[in-house]
Amino acid sequence: MSENYTPTARTRLVREAERAVYDRAAAYRILDEGFICHVGFVVDGQPFVIPTGYGRVGDNLYIHGSAASRMLRNLDQGLAVCVTVTLLDGLVLARSIFNHSMNYRSVVVLGTAVAVQDRSEKLEALRLLSEHILPGRWADSRQPNEKEIKATLVLRLPITEFSAKVRQGAPIDDEDDYGFSTWAGVIPLSMVAGEPVDDPRLMAGQVVPSYAKGYSRVR
Amino acid sequence: MSENYTPTARTRLVREAERAVYDRAAAYRILDEGFICHVGFVVDGQPFVIPTGYGRVGDNLYIHGSAASRMLRNLDQGLAVCVTVTLLDGLVLARSIFNHSMNYRSVVVLGTAVAVQDRSEKLEALRLLSEHILPGRWADSRQPNEKEIKATLVLRLPITEFSAKVRQGAPIDDEDDYGFSTWAGVIPLSMVAGEPVDDPRLMAGQVVPSYAKGYSRVR
Repeated sequence: MSENYTPTARTRLVREAERAVYDRAAAYRILDEGFICHVGFVVDGQPFVIPTGYGRVGDNLYIHGSAASRMLRNLDQGLAVCVTVTLLDGLVLARSIFNHSMNYRSVVVLGTAVAVQDRSEKLEALRLLSEHILPGRWADSRQPNEKEIKATLVLRLPITEFSAKVRQGAPIDDEDDYGFSTWAGVIPLSMVAGEPVDDPRLMAGQVVPSYAKGYSRVR
Repeated sequence: MSENYTPTARTRLVREAERAVYDRAAAYRILDEGFICHVGFVVDGQPFVIPTGYGRVGDNLYIHGSAASRMLRNLDQGLAVCVTVTLLDGLVLARSIFNHSMNYRSVVVLGTAVAVQDRSEKLEALRLLSEHILPGRWADSRQPNEKEIKATLVLRLPITEFSAKVRQGAPIDDEDDYGFSTWAGVIPLSMVAGEPVDDPRLMAGQVVPSYAKGYSRVR
């Protein structure tokens, strides 16, 4: 897990190389904090980028959706795909407009997604995907029946060719600008969970489970 | 602005059509609340998806970056592009695993980005992009010099072919499942700003400006 990864020509960062992260464990920490990815694929020369949930299981990413979905039907055919996960950490206010930036952590995975055909692998992938997003929820839910399993397409993308990029900390201004009279610093941003909201049709006596309280992605 | 938009075959939602939003004003509200997009483009048949800041100005999206950036150099050549903006609003916990979902608002814009060549349009686009992300900051910053303007590439994407998708509210379970004994509801999620953090090299006497306090995208 702590191996260093050798980037390919497609994943080596050309610019801002100081932001590059080629350590697999560091990339996995980003993938584990996130749970929404943007999936890029090409149909008739046109790129499409669609947001969807994902889970990391070992050295694979799993995404799922309806077997009727246009996106998944296309990906199922072994198309080249790009899965990008971005965590936004803040706005970076430099003294010069030019050096304004954002703090973020992102991972890009390139490859070919394949549909999981085996029923038990598919069910286990769905369970792990669910556990990735909200640990504890699977066991409390009505389990998938055969019709639902069939109606769900699960795609597996091996995390083989990837890059990660991280920018953190204070603004970096040109040396001449440090005397410019304006505030500089960082506005931290994070995703936070509010109080869980009961379904209006909730059965009497059901209380919010502990895993749904104080939801946070930071481990 | 309140016109209804007629989707193309590429942007009409095939599944979950009840989540489709073809109203331009509604799509613009989503674009105005967001400021990070995921840009998809294709190089040698491989899709790439890169996160970047953007601003909406009228019926155009502007994105910017270094003139040396691999992404922007490619897009500059008039490549087909997909720009996707996603706002995540919550985890939706249904009684059945199958009906779990997320609340979100997203917009997909397809088209061809073009580089802004005219110097004054470029500078104005940068100003409006800055105002989109953090209103008030531009005037307080050291303005771009000629070298910096040249080093910045600004791309304009007309918002011509687009679709928006919104899922909100309570879970929707199969009627048979409403008697299943588990909690159901929504965990609301939102992006929040923390207290601004001073640059360690801040000049004495600089205080956090009002526009940097209580930063929020909700208008």
